[in-house]
Amino acid sequence: MGKGELTKAAILDEAVQIASRVGFAGLSIGQLADQVEMSKSGLFAHFRSKEQLQLQAMERAKQKFVDVVIRPALAAPRGVPRVRAVFDGWLDWTHQALRGGCIFVAASAELDDQPGALRDALVRNERDWLEFIATVAGTAVAEGEFREDLDLEQFAFEVHGVMLAHHHASRLLLDERAEARTRQAFESLLEAAGRP
Amino acid sequence: MGKGELTKAAILDEAVQIASRVGFAGLSIGQLADQVEMSKSGLFAHFRSKEQLQLQAMERAKQKFVDVVIRPALAAPRGVPRVRAVFDGWLDWTHQALRGGCIFVAASAELDDQPGALRDALVRNERDWLEFIATVAGTAVAEGEFREDLDLEQFAFEVHGVMLAHHHASRLLLDERAEARTRQAFESLLEAAGRP
Repeated sequence: MGKGELTKAAILDEAVQIASRVGFAGLSIGQLADQVEMSKSGLFAHFRSKEQLQLQAMERAKQKFVDVVIRPALAAPRGVPRVRAVFDGWLDWTHQALRGGCIFVAASAELDDQPGALRDALVRNERDWLEFIATVAGTAVAEGEFREDLDLEQFAFEVHGVMLAHHHASRLLLDERAEARTRQAFESLLEAAGRP
Repeated sequence: MGKGELTKAAILDEAVQIASRVGFAGLSIGQLADQVEMSKSGLFAHFRSKEQLQLQAMERAKQKFVDVVIRPALAAPRGVPRVRAVFDGWLDWTHQALRGGCIFVAASAELDDQPGALRDALVRNERDWLEFIATVAGTAVAEGEFREDLDLEQFAFEVHGVMLAHHHASRLLLDERAEARTRQAFESLLEAAGRP
């Protein structure tokens, strides 16, 4: 990346952090300018509109998600080890990547009633993510670890529910047992998916 | 209720509808005044501040939740029928009660990083709700339908995760199979909780 692209990536990283805490609606060019100590006009030159800033922040968040969750999972051996890597990567992501927790969880509640390009981008990301979980579960079927008749989309739906419950327990309730409960729920899903 | 209280309840019902769609941050006295065709000064006389309006809307949402979910569940026979009544009541609540889906799901993502009285009120509601699910599951243990060593809080955590996944699939992804997936996930939890 050239210097301009590096600057833009750093600005977008900050935008993603802001959106993870206050939502995409709260992400304004003015606030971001304060945070990165640039002029509003300088940021306008980069993004031109609030919607462009939001869309590029969403895209940047997706790139980070690929780096923290998807890529390491694909490096794990096919089958249950990869399913576990997806889950562990997601926990890392929600604990460490962003100050406000998983930006996609926050955005899902924020944008479900807000039609537009940003919602459409989020829906594409979320569908890709659920399909990715289902596909990885499919490798465990292929390896003979999960039962052959496993409904992969149902498995992805249920794993996703556990992740959402984790986000709620850890970030809203500040429940110290959130991670233990989450891991136990995930183990139950692995066990139910296993061959009888 | 006297006329004044009825008016206030009707105003708060509208406030809950608005907050379910645009979040509590988006709930302003000005917008509410437009919606209920009252003057801003008239609403200020009722609520005095945006925070008071938000807190009373949260309280009103809780009352509605008790009417739609808790009260019918407590009328169901103890044990698995009551666990099912909790779940069915919650599905009714999220489908029908509010235009923007479950206001507590939306608020959980909105308020997790916003310290204050509104977040505190939400946390109390959410803890009460999870305890209620656990307590109802306990009646199924007492009736001999669930196994004796069932971890009631874990069961509540997992049921809650299924509900969160339903909200995501139905409201964000507009997935036609959301309810079928949700019911299947719930049946799996009932089965796992059952006596061996």
